[in-house]
Amino acid sequence: MKILIKNALIITCDGRIIKNGYIVITEDIITEVSDGEPPKDVPYDRIMDAGRMMVMPGLVNSHTHTSMTLFRNYGGGLGLEDWLHKKIFPAEKKLRDMDIYHGTMLAAVEMIKSGTTAFADMYLDADQMATAVIDSGLRANICQLPIDPLGTGSSPVRGFYAKWGGGRYPRIKPYVLVHSAYLYGEDQLMLSAETAKELGIGIHTHLLETRSEYLEGIKKYGIDNAMEMEKCGIFDVPVIAAHCVHVTDEDISILKRNNVNVAHNPTSNLKLGSGVAPVHQMMEAGINVCLGTDGTASNNTLDMFEEIKLAAMLQKGINRDARLMTSEQVLQMATLNGAKALGFDYDLGAIRKGAKADIIMIDIDKPHFTPLNDPMEALVYCAHGSDVDTVIADGKILMEKRQLLSLDEEKILQEIDSIAKRVIS
Amino acid sequence: MKILIKNALIITCDGRIIKNGYIVITEDIITEVSDGEPPKDVPYDRIMDAGRMMVMPGLVNSHTHTSMTLFRNYGGGLGLEDWLHKKIFPAEKKLRDMDIYHGTMLAAVEMIKSGTTAFADMYLDADQMATAVIDSGLRANICQLPIDPLGTGSSPVRGFYAKWGGGRYPRIKPYVLVHSAYLYGEDQLMLSAETAKELGIGIHTHLLETRSEYLEGIKKYGIDNAMEMEKCGIFDVPVIAAHCVHVTDEDISILKRNNVNVAHNPTSNLKLGSGVAPVHQMMEAGINVCLGTDGTASNNTLDMFEEIKLAAMLQKGINRDARLMTSEQVLQMATLNGAKALGFDYDLGAIRKGAKADIIMIDIDKPHFTPLNDPMEALVYCAHGSDVDTVIADGKILMEKRQLLSLDEEKILQEIDSIAKRVIS
Repeated sequence: MKILIKNALIITCDGRIIKNGYIVITEDIITEVSDGEPPKDVPYDRIMDAGRMMVMPGLVNSHTHTSMTLFRNYGGGLGLEDWLHKKIFPAEKKLRDMDIYHGTMLAAVEMIKSGTTAFADMYLDADQMATAVIDSGLRANICQLPIDPLGTGSSPVRGFYAKWGGGRYPRIKPYVLVHSAYLYGEDQLMLSAETAKELGIGIHTHLLETRSEYLEGIKKYGIDNAMEMEKCGIFDVPVIAAHCVHVTDEDISILKRNNVNVAHNPTSNLKLGSGVAPVHQMMEAGINVCLGTDGTASNNTLDMFEEIKLAAMLQKGINRDARLMTSEQVLQMATLNGAKALGFDYDLGAIRKGAKADIIMIDIDKPHFTPLNDPMEALVYCAHGSDVDTVIADGKILMEKRQLLSLDEEKILQEIDSIAKRVIS
Repeated sequence: MKILIKNALIITCDGRIIKNGYIVITEDIITEVSDGEPPKDVPYDRIMDAGRMMVMPGLVNSHTHTSMTLFRNYGGGLGLEDWLHKKIFPAEKKLRDMDIYHGTMLAAVEMIKSGTTAFADMYLDADQMATAVIDSGLRANICQLPIDPLGTGSSPVRGFYAKWGGGRYPRIKPYVLVHSAYLYGEDQLMLSAETAKELGIGIHTHLLETRSEYLEGIKKYGIDNAMEMEKCGIFDVPVIAAHCVHVTDEDISILKRNNVNVAHNPTSNLKLGSGVAPVHQMMEAGINVCLGTDGTASNNTLDMFEEIKLAAMLQKGINRDARLMTSEQVLQMATLNGAKALGFDYDLGAIRKGAKADIIMIDIDKPHFTPLNDPMEALVYCAHGSDVDTVIADGKILMEKRQLLSLDEEKILQEIDSIAKRVIS
């Protein structure tokens, strides 16, 4: 399958803007990116005209709990601890059968319709999540516990890795799930690090999301959670550390020297009253900061364009400096930086020759994009998920003119209502 | 004209949720709101089925500069002072002919398509703005200078009031424009207050947007800008004070005892590096706080749903308390509180008997509203302007199934491109 996208205003997200150019996709790979007219007399299976569109890499959601779509808007107005213990954990106990699969499929519909093509997921039944990822055409880093919390002695992540890892499913990347240093003990942290090292994979964790988490860490370990994680070897493998709101200057040094990827979740951090992560300071320190929506129960959507705009303006506002966080920087956070954090062993997250063909096209023929004085600013400050017209992932067209081509949206939405009625009661 | 809206999930924005009810509109007024089925055998000119919709009052944008749509995305990454003096003021000098009219019409298209039915505008040529308001079917508070800055001795606001005020155009409310205490002298402030008192109208102003404005005020007047405005009589008339980011506790008392309406512009304040207004504290003090987008050159859209979500979560995050700013409070800020600030002498901003028929219908048959566990949370945290399906203003249907019925969207958008090319260069 050979696809040509022509007449395109391309934001490559690795430093280039091509005002009028074209992209050739061969199977799952971008094989040409150039300005000007495409060469004639080349046979294409499909020619897509991107006139009045902006073309950019598919967005990468670096921290989410996709099946929590089932709990969307549930437990609003509560702080993180109350929200988890009084609302979310009791509801999660009612999950059964293929609920996680259906929740992930709902998330997949929402992600495709808002331009996300890859994500890092942390939740319960990874087999169901992975099945939904394969069915939806998306790409995901999925983490699982190193040891069964029910005490059977089995290792969920080893089972998951054996089935889905090792290149068997190139769109799935297994990671070890470390919920957090505050919920784990030192033994569990060390076991997690050892498991990841043995399997040759990374770790996805929550880190210093709230002030109370910071204080409890000090109480429990004598040092804060970032230091404890470093001590236990967690940072010896590639890590996605979500939140990092309450990191100290010393923590920032720790994250940098260990090449930890920080997934910034600005909406969730505000909504749960956690605070604002020092993203500008972390980026200045050279840390790879990417973007996530967190779960829809604390957001309450999976629309990465919301995070892009919020991440940009929040750092400007909090640091009282409008020059911080350029549009280019924040677009890279949502694409290239996220792709790096997800840990796939192929090129992903930019429109360039040799990269995987995860591409979205944004319809700019709308009043809120008019006039188009600055395309990059327009993408950051004017675009919404609903402006995404076309989504290509792994070289396959998943959505065109906002119609899903691979999923039955109506059926998926119907399935959810009955599940939600059962678990939210 | 008698319109029935039936099968509606109604958020009245004055304290009620009607799970399944109906609304009757007679000419420009809501004449019935009730749960259950509408009475049979009543002749309606139009019956609208709101199944799978949420119905709420039209949104009120309490502080904007609509024609700045022409400068959308221009001058990104600059602080307020640089942005104004290096980019915006030079571009404004190139405006001519009917540019302001066309800029306002573009804004009208964008506002209707994102659910806004009334706004408070502060900009240059008020005649052009008012003409666009009448042509578009919207409602606006429009302010003008008390004295011609070119020194002709004429009073723009008196001329504007004579033509458009005094009930001649019930959808237009003239106000006196006071740009700010830092740009005005004491004489101008006093003259503005006197003019407003004589005409029996209010004042729309910027107040304490940046820290430097606060400091300059102290330097210029010996007291801060809020105190100076009180001293000059500005607060003796109804006032919309935009921003109020850098208010002291004493300023909050001043605003409260003078019943000043505060227009909070969270996006613009973050994006320009101004900071975060102490909205929670102002609301606790009993001040009427409403919401605005500011101009699109510092936002960069007119989508009030973005301000709703941001206002809610920003206060939670900054104050580290997820319980602050309930969904009901923030929806009222965007409707009823805004309507109060605009100063019309009729009931506006809620779905209740006797109020003006400004109503919007939101299509919730979408993945990001699924499942609908909590309608009010869904409106605040999941809705985007693009979810607005139908807009009724003053009893007239301005948009249905996202098609504008009274404006030629394509023609308006085309007109803009040539203007933008001339003024942005």
